[in-house]
Amino acid sequence: MEQRLTVVTLGVADLERSARFYEQALGWKRSAQSQDGVVFFSLGGWVLSLFGRDDLAADAGVSVEGSGFSGIALAHNVRSQGEVDAVLAQAAQHGGRLVKAGEKASWGGYSGYFADPDGHLFEVAHNPFWPLDERGQVELG
Amino acid sequence: MEQRLTVVTLGVADLERSARFYEQALGWKRSAQSQDGVVFFSLGGWVLSLFGRDDLAADAGVSVEGSGFSGIALAHNVRSQGEVDAVLAQAAQHGGRLVKAGEKASWGGYSGYFADPDGHLFEVAHNPFWPLDERGQVELG
Repeated sequence: MEQRLTVVTLGVADLERSARFYEQALGWKRSAQSQDGVVFFSLGGWVLSLFGRDDLAADAGVSVEGSGFSGIALAHNVRSQGEVDAVLAQAAQHGGRLVKAGEKASWGGYSGYFADPDGHLFEVAHNPFWPLDERGQVELG
Repeated sequence: MEQRLTVVTLGVADLERSARFYEQALGWKRSAQSQDGVVFFSLGGWVLSLFGRDDLAADAGVSVEGSGFSGIALAHNVRSQGEVDAVLAQAAQHGGRLVKAGEKASWGGYSGYFADPDGHLFEVAHNPFWPLDERGQVELG
């Protein structure tokens, strides 16, 4: 199995509400390959997908029952501390929820968290030890 | 907010058990930047991170309580139907759980699901409409 992933799918209660959150709060643009019932955001070689939570459980053949902490967080790294605060504020202003305001982290960076309209956790972080290239990507050794 | 993500973090109960699963079942190589308490896998511009489930909840400042369907699935796309079956079998042989055997999908491809040792859902899919480039990446319009 090659060391890569292709899609992260977030199950959502209201597809249009979530798609608008990613467009308006985050400023992302949905892919023209989005279809009825599924919205794709191209992330530079891989894809974030929004899909009905019930549909996702049904596709995997598992019970849709579940609550509380998902055990997963997505992170968006930025180039400065101020940018962390700006992204968190922007998410909170457009339908996200501020979970943790930006603060200095024990690992030497600065980070905070917001939740999307379904509660999916996003960390926004500045990590001075992981420089971002011009595409915003990070290549670890 | 640029249209990209940097890290997907999976909260796990036993870090070494999970790291071995990703190394042995999936054949991935952990990054030399992994540290005590956190394991990184470089995915070509972004990172899959394994971190204690309790630690992840604490870092976000949320309750660690949660159970059942997480509402999230990660997908690894491959180049043929046979490769879907091979990856699912390999994951199941090394501590993963087969959640759904490979089968033809309504969208025209072929896919199945496995769960990692903590139950995190992975779809393995062949999607003939999303050709993978030489790095295994997909660029949507």
